[in-house]
Amino acid sequence: MTAKLVYDFDEYCEGGRDVLGGKGLGLAEMTALDLPVPAGFTITTEACRHYLADHGPLPADLREEIEQHLALLEERTGQRFGDPANPLLVSVRSGGPVSMPGMMETVLNLGMGDAVIRQAQPEAVHFLLDDYRRLIQMYGEVVAGIDSALFAKELEAFEARDHNETPTHDDLNELVDAFRGIYLDATGTDFPQDPKEQLFAAVAAVFDSWNAPRAQVYRKTAGISEDAGTAANVVQMVFGNRDSRSATGVCFSRDPATGEPGLYGEFLSEAQGEDIVAGTRTPLPVAEMRAVLPEAHAQLVTAVAELERHYRDMQDVEFTVESGRFYLLQTRGAKRTATAALRTAVDMAGEGLLSRDEAVQRIDPAQLEQLLHPTIDPRAELVVVATGLCASPGAACGLAIFDANTAAARSADGEDIILVRPETTADDIHGLLPAQGILTARGGMTSHAAVVARGLGKPCVAGCAALDIDLDERIARIGDVAIREGDPLTIDGTTGRVILGLAPLVEPEPDANLATILDWADDVRRLRVYANADTPLDAERARKHGAEGIGLCRTEHMFMAAERLPIVREMILASTVEERAAALEQLLPMQQSDFEGIFEAMAGLPVTIRLLDPPLHEFLPDPAEVEDLHIRERIESLREANPMLGTRGCRLGIERPEIYEMQIKAIVRAGQAVEQRMGVLPIIEIMHPLVAFASELEWLVELTARTVAEEGGLEYRVGTMIELPRAALRAGELAVHADFFSFGTNDLTQTTLGVSRDDAQGRFLTFYLQHGLLAQDPFQTIDVEGVGELVRTAVERGRATRPSIEIGICGEHGGDPASIAFCESIGLDYVSCSPFRVPVARLAAAQAVLAAGAAYVPAGG
Amino acid sequence: MTAKLVYDFDEYCEGGRDVLGGKGLGLAEMTALDLPVPAGFTITTEACRHYLADHGPLPADLREEIEQHLALLEERTGQRFGDPANPLLVSVRSGGPVSMPGMMETVLNLGMGDAVIRQAQPEAVHFLLDDYRRLIQMYGEVVAGIDSALFAKELEAFEARDHNETPTHDDLNELVDAFRGIYLDATGTDFPQDPKEQLFAAVAAVFDSWNAPRAQVYRKTAGISEDAGTAANVVQMVFGNRDSRSATGVCFSRDPATGEPGLYGEFLSEAQGEDIVAGTRTPLPVAEMRAVLPEAHAQLVTAVAELERHYRDMQDVEFTVESGRFYLLQTRGAKRTATAALRTAVDMAGEGLLSRDEAVQRIDPAQLEQLLHPTIDPRAELVVVATGLCASPGAACGLAIFDANTAAARSADGEDIILVRPETTADDIHGLLPAQGILTARGGMTSHAAVVARGLGKPCVAGCAALDIDLDERIARIGDVAIREGDPLTIDGTTGRVILGLAPLVEPEPDANLATILDWADDVRRLRVYANADTPLDAERARKHGAEGIGLCRTEHMFMAAERLPIVREMILASTVEERAAALEQLLPMQQSDFEGIFEAMAGLPVTIRLLDPPLHEFLPDPAEVEDLHIRERIESLREANPMLGTRGCRLGIERPEIYEMQIKAIVRAGQAVEQRMGVLPIIEIMHPLVAFASELEWLVELTARTVAEEGGLEYRVGTMIELPRAALRAGELAVHADFFSFGTNDLTQTTLGVSRDDAQGRFLTFYLQHGLLAQDPFQTIDVEGVGELVRTAVERGRATRPSIEIGICGEHGGDPASIAFCESIGLDYVSCSPFRVPVARLAAAQAVLAAGAAYVPAGG
Repeated sequence: MTAKLVYDFDEYCEGGRDVLGGKGLGLAEMTALDLPVPAGFTITTEACRHYLADHGPLPADLREEIEQHLALLEERTGQRFGDPANPLLVSVRSGGPVSMPGMMETVLNLGMGDAVIRQAQPEAVHFLLDDYRRLIQMYGEVVAGIDSALFAKELEAFEARDHNETPTHDDLNELVDAFRGIYLDATGTDFPQDPKEQLFAAVAAVFDSWNAPRAQVYRKTAGISEDAGTAANVVQMVFGNRDSRSATGVCFSRDPATGEPGLYGEFLSEAQGEDIVAGTRTPLPVAEMRAVLPEAHAQLVTAVAELERHYRDMQDVEFTVESGRFYLLQTRGAKRTATAALRTAVDMAGEGLLSRDEAVQRIDPAQLEQLLHPTIDPRAELVVVATGLCASPGAACGLAIFDANTAAARSADGEDIILVRPETTADDIHGLLPAQGILTARGGMTSHAAVVARGLGKPCVAGCAALDIDLDERIARIGDVAIREGDPLTIDGTTGRVILGLAPLVEPEPDANLATILDWADDVRRLRVYANADTPLDAERARKHGAEGIGLCRTEHMFMAAERLPIVREMILASTVEERAAALEQLLPMQQSDFEGIFEAMAGLPVTIRLLDPPLHEFLPDPAEVEDLHIRERIESLREANPMLGTRGCRLGIERPEIYEMQIKAIVRAGQAVEQRMGVLPIIEIMHPLVAFASELEWLVELTARTVAEEGGLEYRVGTMIELPRAALRAGELAVHADFFSFGTNDLTQTTLGVSRDDAQGRFLTFYLQHGLLAQDPFQTIDVEGVGELVRTAVERGRATRPSIEIGICGEHGGDPASIAFCESIGLDYVSCSPFRVPVARLAAAQAVLAAGAAYVPAGG
Repeated sequence: MTAKLVYDFDEYCEGGRDVLGGKGLGLAEMTALDLPVPAGFTITTEACRHYLADHGPLPADLREEIEQHLALLEERTGQRFGDPANPLLVSVRSGGPVSMPGMMETVLNLGMGDAVIRQAQPEAVHFLLDDYRRLIQMYGEVVAGIDSALFAKELEAFEARDHNETPTHDDLNELVDAFRGIYLDATGTDFPQDPKEQLFAAVAAVFDSWNAPRAQVYRKTAGISEDAGTAANVVQMVFGNRDSRSATGVCFSRDPATGEPGLYGEFLSEAQGEDIVAGTRTPLPVAEMRAVLPEAHAQLVTAVAELERHYRDMQDVEFTVESGRFYLLQTRGAKRTATAALRTAVDMAGEGLLSRDEAVQRIDPAQLEQLLHPTIDPRAELVVVATGLCASPGAACGLAIFDANTAAARSADGEDIILVRPETTADDIHGLLPAQGILTARGGMTSHAAVVARGLGKPCVAGCAALDIDLDERIARIGDVAIREGDPLTIDGTTGRVILGLAPLVEPEPDANLATILDWADDVRRLRVYANADTPLDAERARKHGAEGIGLCRTEHMFMAAERLPIVREMILASTVEERAAALEQLLPMQQSDFEGIFEAMAGLPVTIRLLDPPLHEFLPDPAEVEDLHIRERIESLREANPMLGTRGCRLGIERPEIYEMQIKAIVRAGQAVEQRMGVLPIIEIMHPLVAFASELEWLVELTARTVAEEGGLEYRVGTMIELPRAALRAGELAVHADFFSFGTNDLTQTTLGVSRDDAQGRFLTFYLQHGLLAQDPFQTIDVEGVGELVRTAVERGRATRPSIEIGICGEHGGDPASIAFCESIGLDYVSCSPFRVPVARLAAAQAVLAAGAAYVPAGG
């Protein structure tokens, strides 16, 4: 390797974040802005990659380059690394191109040793001893891999002994000796006194932490490249614990919960950063710094304002004040709630910091879901008994149930339940599916329960270690609190809280900033956003959320209504043509009235009606519960081995034309009635499902035209779902007969991948996601390489035959931002998603345009 | 239209068969060979297409062209059309480019009328009256559309009246008058006396018969283009019924049953062709013509020999002798049994008439199946009680059962059954599936029963009109014979016979000519032919049939054996890792011994072993029959909504690696043992099923390598099935990890079309085939447009990554000639099919090369 592998914070690096990592880049940029940053340098991600590829050790030329920068650092600080009289202490801090909070290692106070203590000024001894024991502990854990419990136990004993008084030098000396003893016992060698040995070992350990199992799992989940590597930042130590004019703190440039402008954060006098995290002392609001450390406070205000101007985004900074002198240690984009993100974006556009397009780009569409899930009423008094991982957002209430069979049974009885398990496995899937929420004692963000819950869009709190479940006694304990099976319980997957009783939930409130951002998004996006809606109520809700039409109205849901099901069953089980005709005759006015309601709700906008899709046996009772032998046999004879691939969709419509004829009649009559009533002709699109062959569509288009004509005629368009691989491949032929295509990417994913969603979720698909065989759930985000190729092919072939054809997507991917970006990239005309996802889709569609740099221009257009 | 629309038999026509039709071309070619053919001319298929496109009538310029050729005909025959003193009589005979036996119309004796009778020579009156009544009858039926029963009834009465004596002129005059009366009653007009009016109307009627429903259905079934059209041949009448030196007959150039050389046919003196068909008089063997009509017989021998030389194929001729003068009326390639086809091809190659390649091309691979199905012992004495349509070949024995439920129940009890129904519908599928054979009273070659039976490869006799089934009394009657439910019955789908009792069946005998043809085929073909075989016995059989390897050894069949199933169940239901390991430990030596047997049987040839594929619950009992509650729950929890798309194939192997590890260990140990015993290293290919993602294959290849290494190592190759659309699309990535691909076109068809074969056969798929939505069953012949595109794509992408990759097909399409031709066209390396289909595949693979004109040359090869 010949490239430059170490950059001082004041050196420009063309590679930016990829080379320096996020933390290194931030320090370099703050240095360039002349903000008060400790001196230091960054060892690049490239050095890390070489080191990992060679399986260590740090090569000689890298060591040399580090030593050169160390000399520069000594010069700048006027201290010397390893000089007991005037020691330079440094930290080594990891930082990759993409943030991996808590996953990677850091070692502080390097350069400390016996010699420094021996030569220390008396007033500094106490402080230096404290630093020394911290070094031994961190170095021992991170570099030598010593069990952290050994140090923790010793520290606990130390604090228990003398917790009312400030420890004496002797006390501290004893603790340092004890820690050195632990180090010796564990490694067989004394704690190293050579500062450079310490430094190089710490750099190597930081690099090694890239390959720690937890980091690998995190990267898999977050979709971070394994090849990125981490940088290592060597930073001059500054000490918030030096004296009474020292402090440390964290601070946001705006309120990360509400977005309200103004500093928001806290600080602790005479402390180091980890003391804030440990929670042994209570920090004060940052505003109170003005009284205690007025100059430092003024510097903080100025620096944060400067950083916001520079980054044009809300910042999250760490700072330290050492003997009155203010240092910024880190800055990064602030994590914030959806509410805060929206307000910040709108405010910054108002402040001239961002353009409207940029404001639109700043909102994570996935985060909008926070605003769409029910939350716990903030005014409610809650008994929070534990906190776990925020595994899947939203709040849920129900009875605590401790196994999947009981959960399935109680749910079937109509009760809301929370499934509470030590952990879940594939065998629990029948209990996970009907639960309102899931709570587990073990397992992390990629545990079975967490992955399944996110897949199902259900709230989940995972890894709640305080929870102790006794499956025999049917009781769960959290400390002294006992939760018996059947007790009411609430979980909040957004915050990780576990709450006794049924907390009051509130539906999300409308947010004016959301409306503003969506208006701006609408100005930018090219894709139209439709909704999937089956009832007039759904249609109204969709329109309220900004849907520009209905892309999928599933008529089978109308068949399922309680008062209609008996007639549907009569129709299916009829033994003569007359009986069947009579049942259909009864259903016709019911369907007609549904359609009238939807047409009225969507007046002026298109409504795409999909004719009956599921296999008939879905409407029939369990044959075991039927007394009549003839009917039971009839039901049995309709059973299918693989109903997903059986007599459903247009196959049904072709074999039993009377069903589709009834549905088309109902559509036409409803259209005529609404036109008469409102004076507006509904925009009607009739869609045929599960077409595989052009001959099917030709047959159905003819049946449609004939039936419409028999009813006196009406303007309509006719189209087909593209939800089978063959349909995608033969789209050129299908387009001869279709005014529009709508991709049913749920079924297209099932057939292209050969995966039954019902059978895969929580079973092998979850296993694949947990073990890294799949990076993402193909039912959430479209499988661009497989399914995506078929979609792209169908678009090209369909348009080649009929350039004017309208093409959309109505699978659940229609509401997924990554999938919407794909839809934009291949030039679809619209996406259709569930009504509550319409805002997400509007935003994502705009961002897709902005990310592409320009609106999609169709070939030849 | 400006093209020439009428060709005299002695005019050369460049368009050949497409323009003149098969019959017209035959007449023209025989004329060109100077064979004795009646004079005449052909009105082209193009004229027919114009006529049909314009919905008639015959355009003026066509009439004019016909009249010109008619004038030529008059000149040549010395007779005049419409001249009562010297009348020219003609026939109009249909004949399309592809033969549609019995589907199209013919009218004889045109030009006859009252005037001819009035001016006839006394000795000719009788003969002419007979011709006249035939004309009125045929013209009435074909041109005027009069119910044939009206004429038949009158003729019956006429023959009953006087059946002992030759009818007098008066009798015949009466009959003619009666027929004219029928014509007048039915049409309201007199029978037309103008010969040209008769001729033009007959030509139009022949053209119209192209669009008769039966002809349309036939074309759909036979895959004949709707646009081909028929030609109409206008032929001078010659009369085998003129006098005692007249005769008519049909004759094959060789025995169509055995292929034995020498004329084979029969003749009738003083008769017309239809008399032979009617069967009222018994014809004599053609050899006896030598005594009666020696000159004509000699001419026949010469002509047939000439025709065989010319066509280099067995001929089927019709001839007529009029007053001692010999005429050939028609020649065509003879329909023949498979035995005869093989012998003829081999003999003709020996006679120098054909090259070996041509001999290979002359055998229809589908016809070879006749030789592969069991047949009824020819020495057995049979009680044949009825004959129906030969709907699906092969013979079958069993108990007569009259409904599907009983059939399913009796089959489940282990009994062989013949399902006997008036007709079948989709609701009978559960009775069709287990039946040995199917017999129906109604329905044709495309009836539900016929289509399903052919799809399932089961014998079927359909449309057996003599069969009268009384479902209440549970009795079927054929005339006086009663068949009660449960009575033993035999059907022969190859001949259409229905036979009382259980006839002795014989396995097909080896045919030396078949071996010769297959040897010649092997010299030509490029595709290797492997077999699908799961047992040593299957493997031996496959090798005997010429298989060059095993392309698919399904290990699950080994799991199903009665003594193993309990252990397999223990393994699946084990509640601890130890229990599972113990069960697998028991299975290992069993699998090993299977593999040893197969390796020994296939020594020197490759054996491709597919690891466990079906979902685990296929091995488990019905949970309703299990007492133990825990086990019952465990079984229930393994149930899947769509098992075809569930946890099976490599998904199982990844989630439960111990199963695949056991199988791989068994393979390695078997390989080592056989090598030691025989001194030959088996050629082992390990194949992973249902791969969709490259990450799966990577994981499995690693697991395979690790396990093989743990067992001490062995040479092997590893590959994957391509049976999901995604796998086909991502073949480029998969090829990184695979030494070979094998297309599982059964599953690939199911997923690409979204069709569950189990649920579609006999239901919507049969409906589609019957109603012309599909031309062929995609599970029999590969869907080239859909599935085929994916296969072609996978081949291209796989080879782009790894040019040396071996690619084959192991779905049932591997034994289908049309699919094999497709495999040849895209350059696969091998096809694998069931052992008994191996000869079919060897022949089809050779024909595919010959049809393509040259062997496939891989790109860049």
